[in-house]
Amino acid sequence: MSATNNSAFLCRSRFRITVGKEIALGPGKIDLLEAIAEKGSISSAAREMGLSYRRAWQMVRTVNDCFKSPLVESAKGGKGGGGAKITPLGQRVMRLYRAMESKAEKSTQAEWKSLSKLLKN
Amino acid sequence: MSATNNSAFLCRSRFRITVGKEIALGPGKIDLLEAIAEKGSISSAAREMGLSYRRAWQMVRTVNDCFKSPLVESAKGGKGGGGAKITPLGQRVMRLYRAMESKAEKSTQAEWKSLSKLLKN
Repeated sequence: MSATNNSAFLCRSRFRITVGKEIALGPGKIDLLEAIAEKGSISSAAREMGLSYRRAWQMVRTVNDCFKSPLVESAKGGKGGGGAKITPLGQRVMRLYRAMESKAEKSTQAEWKSLSKLLKN
Repeated sequence: MSATNNSAFLCRSRFRITVGKEIALGPGKIDLLEAIAEKGSISSAAREMGLSYRRAWQMVRTVNDCFKSPLVESAKGGKGGGGAKITPLGQRVMRLYRAMESKAEKSTQAEWKSLSKLLKN
């Protein structure tokens, strides 16, 4: 969500899906999936997001492990680990997650408008 | 938000209000405000949340600075900094924030149900 009052305050909805203490899916992992979809590789996506390749790969492994089948398929080998692509399941998950954010934004516009008036100008 | 599929996945909506790189209000600060309301002091609330008194005080200062008037009023002096209470503005902000979470949850039930079916059992 992004909305402004007369100053520079922004409000963003975020959804976090957890299992125990682990985050199965949240804003960071969704951004990573979108970057992989755009760049076609985990290493390029990691670079774009300022993550280490190791960290990005851990995040991919977590989402792949949490869903019934992988969201990201990566080709082994090659510089930086080869290419990677989002599976149809991954694309469905990304669409559902972004739809949740969008619906959350729409359903809370009145409250955010009230809140933003209480923030400093 | 909390909802389960047949395993232990939970989904929680979170709102983050930012100004520049600073978080004016988010789940941690709202939890702290609620703890202060319950405990009547910043130090007791910090202890309950596993925060240092310094960190809790910084969070209170941030929210107080971001809104038109303070959300928390604290009495100076005494062991642990004396008592603290939530102002009427603070109570209004807490209600609006929790209402946003609740509306976000309700508006995204269909998507969460679909997503939860894609998670591992």
